[in-house]
Amino acid sequence: MKAIQDYYPEQFAHCYGCGRLNEQGLHLQTRWNGNQTLTTYLPDPRYTAVPGFVYGGLLASIIDCHGTGSAALALAREKGLQPEGYNAPRCVTASLQVDYLLPTPMGVELRVTGNIAEVKGRKVVVDAELYAGDTLCVRGKIIAIEIPEHFGK
Amino acid sequence: MKAIQDYYPEQFAHCYGCGRLNEQGLHLQTRWNGNQTLTTYLPDPRYTAVPGFVYGGLLASIIDCHGTGSAALALAREKGLQPEGYNAPRCVTASLQVDYLLPTPMGVELRVTGNIAEVKGRKVVVDAELYAGDTLCVRGKIIAIEIPEHFGK
Repeated sequence: MKAIQDYYPEQFAHCYGCGRLNEQGLHLQTRWNGNQTLTTYLPDPRYTAVPGFVYGGLLASIIDCHGTGSAALALAREKGLQPEGYNAPRCVTASLQVDYLLPTPMGVELRVTGNIAEVKGRKVVVDAELYAGDTLCVRGKIIAIEIPEHFGK
Repeated sequence: MKAIQDYYPEQFAHCYGCGRLNEQGLHLQTRWNGNQTLTTYLPDPRYTAVPGFVYGGLLASIIDCHGTGSAALALAREKGLQPEGYNAPRCVTASLQVDYLLPTPMGVELRVTGNIAEVKGRKVVVDAELYAGDTLCVRGKIIAIEIPEHFGK
């Protein structure tokens, strides 16, 4: 199953976190999983905080792109839009809140879930939880805004 | 003038954002600048959001390490500690809030200032502002906690 990032317009597909066209990026991918959204990722060891644990800036980055991806999924659903070609909505982050509950271990696939808390016009609020195995390590909230197609052109 | 990160204990100097021993990392450096703290950084073009603008996850990472570095500076000052050798305090992030006020342009050196809002035992609150040239693009707040020397050993 394709991810929402596979359907971003080409001019918006260069993001270091989730752009399919950024050769040096993380290539994060976000999909529906029932009524939640889901992004999974196994961090490269370079993204260390202290040895054995994942860098908080990477965790914030994952939550950031997971949030904008979840918001795009929510907007597509709201609009009755079936993503195809490169027609998906594309959001940017207005605000990011990350609470580090426990150190996140390196070497474990991370699962980030998203719950759509609010969709209001171009604004979407997403609550995220990041798990290493079954352990909730990080909680996040992002406010995402849909960007106009001409942005950055 | 050396940065606080030059004085982190060796086992805490591998951070992707600010560890002097992480060969693939960003090598962020934080210093006093009067009564504020300062981190400057010119992003590599790989850290793109949409072409021409800096990735929000990188901006969150800069604010994260600027926050923990500022907190370490504040704790050293509070303790009357003159950093030398590898004896600096080392903090981790408990909570990170980032508000993206304007898109941050690529190709401009970023300046991140820090104001120490609170020092209470092992906890430090830092208010950060990120400027591209004279333009305030991002506002951040982090709550940092000093970690015990035996952490991660």
